[in-house]
Amino acid sequence: MDGWMERRAWLPMLNQLPQEGLETPLAMAKYELEAYFAGREKTVCRLDAALGEGFEITEENGGLSIRGGETGVLYGAYALIRARACGEDLPRGVQKPYYPLRMINSWDNMDGSVERGYSGRSIWFEGGRFAYEPARIRQLGRMLASVGINVLCVNNVNVHQPAQHLLDTLLPDTARFASLLRPFGVRLMLSIDFSQPMQQGLPTADPLDEGVRAWWADTARRVWSAIPDLAGFLVKADSEHRPGPNTYGRSHAEGANMLARAIAPYGGALVWRAFVYNCMQDWRDQTTDRPRAAYDLYMPLDGAFDGNVILQVKHGPYDFQVREPLSPLLLGMKKTNLAIEFQLAQEYTGHQIDLYAMPPMWRECFDQMGKERVRAIAAVSNLGRDDNWTGHPFAAANLFAYGLFAWNPDADPEKALRQWAKLTYSLPENQTAALTGILMKSQEAYENYAATLGLCWMVTPGDHYGPNPYGYEFQAWGTYIRADRNAVGIDRTGGGTGYVNQYPEPLRSLYADAHTCPDNLLLFFHRLPYSFVMKDGRTLIQRIYDDHFLGCAQAEEMARALSGLELPFPDRKEAEERMQKQLANAREWRDIVNTFFHRFCGIADDKGRKIYD
Amino acid sequence: MDGWMERRAWLPMLNQLPQEGLETPLAMAKYELEAYFAGREKTVCRLDAALGEGFEITEENGGLSIRGGETGVLYGAYALIRARACGEDLPRGVQKPYYPLRMINSWDNMDGSVERGYSGRSIWFEGGRFAYEPARIRQLGRMLASVGINVLCVNNVNVHQPAQHLLDTLLPDTARFASLLRPFGVRLMLSIDFSQPMQQGLPTADPLDEGVRAWWADTARRVWSAIPDLAGFLVKADSEHRPGPNTYGRSHAEGANMLARAIAPYGGALVWRAFVYNCMQDWRDQTTDRPRAAYDLYMPLDGAFDGNVILQVKHGPYDFQVREPLSPLLLGMKKTNLAIEFQLAQEYTGHQIDLYAMPPMWRECFDQMGKERVRAIAAVSNLGRDDNWTGHPFAAANLFAYGLFAWNPDADPEKALRQWAKLTYSLPENQTAALTGILMKSQEAYENYAATLGLCWMVTPGDHYGPNPYGYEFQAWGTYIRADRNAVGIDRTGGGTGYVNQYPEPLRSLYADAHTCPDNLLLFFHRLPYSFVMKDGRTLIQRIYDDHFLGCAQAEEMARALSGLELPFPDRKEAEERMQKQLANAREWRDIVNTFFHRFCGIADDKGRKIYD
Repeated sequence: MDGWMERRAWLPMLNQLPQEGLETPLAMAKYELEAYFAGREKTVCRLDAALGEGFEITEENGGLSIRGGETGVLYGAYALIRARACGEDLPRGVQKPYYPLRMINSWDNMDGSVERGYSGRSIWFEGGRFAYEPARIRQLGRMLASVGINVLCVNNVNVHQPAQHLLDTLLPDTARFASLLRPFGVRLMLSIDFSQPMQQGLPTADPLDEGVRAWWADTARRVWSAIPDLAGFLVKADSEHRPGPNTYGRSHAEGANMLARAIAPYGGALVWRAFVYNCMQDWRDQTTDRPRAAYDLYMPLDGAFDGNVILQVKHGPYDFQVREPLSPLLLGMKKTNLAIEFQLAQEYTGHQIDLYAMPPMWRECFDQMGKERVRAIAAVSNLGRDDNWTGHPFAAANLFAYGLFAWNPDADPEKALRQWAKLTYSLPENQTAALTGILMKSQEAYENYAATLGLCWMVTPGDHYGPNPYGYEFQAWGTYIRADRNAVGIDRTGGGTGYVNQYPEPLRSLYADAHTCPDNLLLFFHRLPYSFVMKDGRTLIQRIYDDHFLGCAQAEEMARALSGLELPFPDRKEAEERMQKQLANAREWRDIVNTFFHRFCGIADDKGRKIYD
Repeated sequence: MDGWMERRAWLPMLNQLPQEGLETPLAMAKYELEAYFAGREKTVCRLDAALGEGFEITEENGGLSIRGGETGVLYGAYALIRARACGEDLPRGVQKPYYPLRMINSWDNMDGSVERGYSGRSIWFEGGRFAYEPARIRQLGRMLASVGINVLCVNNVNVHQPAQHLLDTLLPDTARFASLLRPFGVRLMLSIDFSQPMQQGLPTADPLDEGVRAWWADTARRVWSAIPDLAGFLVKADSEHRPGPNTYGRSHAEGANMLARAIAPYGGALVWRAFVYNCMQDWRDQTTDRPRAAYDLYMPLDGAFDGNVILQVKHGPYDFQVREPLSPLLLGMKKTNLAIEFQLAQEYTGHQIDLYAMPPMWRECFDQMGKERVRAIAAVSNLGRDDNWTGHPFAAANLFAYGLFAWNPDADPEKALRQWAKLTYSLPENQTAALTGILMKSQEAYENYAATLGLCWMVTPGDHYGPNPYGYEFQAWGTYIRADRNAVGIDRTGGGTGYVNQYPEPLRSLYADAHTCPDNLLLFFHRLPYSFVMKDGRTLIQRIYDDHFLGCAQAEEMARALSGLELPFPDRKEAEERMQKQLANAREWRDIVNTFFHRFCGIADDKGRKIYD
């Protein structure tokens, strides 16, 4: 038996393989209810197509009825199982997902590597082709469906050869893969390469060229005929050396709309990433400011995108840093379908070694943005071929909770994490509370030692794990902290790069004034002397020292709490081993960042703690 | 015709392939003379075994006689051709190489990659096995022999799978490869893995274990029976995570002698690298000092090594940095056979993009060390599968001159470089002088912008090209500059790490006093405030600024001089393209390092030049 078959993540019945040949969500729903309740509870499932993805659970004849649409009935089954396994009340009334597209973006390459993957190799690619155990793909489908995720983009947004061929020579394999996930209501999406027509012999990929339009129309026809429920295409264009419409002097609206029209006849969504900036910046240039890039590029295009285009915007203006303000594009665009993009893969947030539970951060995002500002939601996958799916067994909590937030962006972080803990480990109540507490504190601890006051990019270049405060300082990526002997940070107010003016009031004024700007974004928006006096009376440098000592102490607290948990093997071993690495990492962050700033400013810690020379 | 066949490097006749079947250096000598002179000059070759590698050229009957030992006769032929092609006088009297082992260490991996290779992939490995064009290997043999190099270590000192099998299943292929180079007097050497017995089923690799000794004795017997003239084994042990005798609590003498005894019956040399240090250092630890490591480890073992062990010591105590003092081990060990190791591959010295001619640096080394201190010489190869062999066509000058220095460590750098330029391009005299001038200035320019005052390691981590002044500052490699707002450098005097005490007088006192220490090593030995007044009255920080502006200006001068050279295609194109990259690199170095220190110290340039914020 493969190791992964013994791991059940948060699904109580995942350590059993469902029988094969279950081809619809309804059949799957019945199977799951039977597998979980084994007759202990009487359930019936009723299709009601009008409900779509929605469902309603009601009592009926001493049992329970799940009435739902084609996929809703399966979501209802999982909701029921979740409630029973957690001892929670059943949801009342009709339940419907808030966002119609609840997407996972996998950054899997066809050579089997996963860009920014921390859970082993790709679950479905290896050696330039699809290579997987069908049973494991079905398990994946169950995991995703059990939390309501309904779209899986299978290949990296950076489309490397031969992933272009998912649309042609490899299309039958793509279709076969899609069919494995269809019973779970999970539809495929494909990342495409804007220059693909040229790789097939066309002289151009100009979106206004008739031949190019025809090529994409024909491609869409072929692809949707093989995979009729394909969710759409995902495109990273004109970004980090990817091809795009700018090559031809065309706008991103022209580029996206051309593709959108090719796939509109089939109901496909064209998801266009707004992660576009100058990645060849000269560090000497203090006027170009990377966080401005997306707003500057896309705001003038608001209203120019077709109805089936979705502009997918990272939650912050940089790139999934530990602490960023909400992207102003998410607040500014009014006439464009938007998706917000999160990253479950812990690229900058601890590589699934350090604990970093994201729901509190999502809560802040939605509260500030307003859930209705976006029409869809996406997250970069944290999945891989590791037996436990997510590298760190607790990292599964982010995938689980992501599903819950995508379904209901009003979700409560603590409740979601507690539910995950309970479903996963069935520990005594006080231990479930302790585990939930560890997770709830994890983001704050990490932020304290790795990114206090909104300081981004002090990470090891390339790898993005561990501290290197000046590692990105002189690079071309627009990633600067500009620390010197007197001050640190970038002035993004009107007197500086003007980035703050991309925000609507009252945020604009709030952020623009260093005395009202939230502490956790202070050095994101302002360049300040080390002697700047914070709201609580501490100096900026003292706060930097304090937060680094605090973050490291919080990691040590988490380690103590973890050691008291009666986790099953091998989760306990995995969690403990990674915690040792996290402690080492936290200490490196604390000492290196404190030393770094102390070497610049020469100001002693007023508590006399050890800062190395 | 393959591109490489059209490149002749410094050998006028290299663009012709020699006939096959020439199996001895004598036959090869006759062929080369015929190929070069084509009857224009009458030559005879006479074997005189007593001369060994030596030769004598005399006039005889209106022609020239080359009397030489088995390989000496071939060296004589090349010496004659060189002299004629350069219009120089013939060497008078018997010529003999100073060092019996004149080695090239290739860091080629069997997957075809070359560690720190900047000239393309391996010439002889690919896909886990030998893979080469025999004709190209013969050309390589001619190039090496033409400058007297007589040992080629074929595989990386970091022995990765399956290179261990060069000694067993791949031994017939290794022998076949050796036979291609034998007519050129080039003998193979193999890098071995100290733990190899364990990979073949033994429970240990303990050098004092009888089974291990027997295993190596048996292995040596097999290997030398296949390759009777194998030069020996090269070993990197207990270094950078390589296995070694320390695992078993044995000394390096015990480890080396065990291997040396296994190969002694066959006349093999056991070359043991002294590049051993703690590569897991804590940056907080200011007492451990990496440059101390080799001396601390090996001096107590002086006299403990067998007669066929050669301890191969890098020329400086760190790792081929642009500027290091001579390794004190080379001055200290009296009862051990030493080899000095240089690195032709421009790992830290410009990746064969930036110009960096090494002969002036070698001249300094030999003058300080005394050529008689070492018994052998080695250099890491700069060769690869690029058509021009060395990435940058001018980088061949380092290989050429290395051969001349290995033969005669009293060689003159300028003469060697001029000879290379003349042989390679046959330009008008003023252009040969200009090219020689560019090369002679190249090291100084690079040092000015990349490593002034002996500051090491301000390079991009991992890659080692381009500036990243704090990139290695907090890593585990023992690579620190410890810049802060007041001072920079490491105190390696008696009051500091004590490293300077590893030097004999008068060097010890010279280096220990910041007022007598040579400027180019000042920050290698001392930690000094930016306001420190140098010998010429400038402050330390002003000197840092000045040297960076100067180095960059020197690169610009070299670019101007280069543009005036009438080089053949494609050398001109290759050299010009790389020069553009060098200029960009020099400007990055200038501005980033100046900004870096300016941010720390806040002291303005007294000439008012632009230093970016």
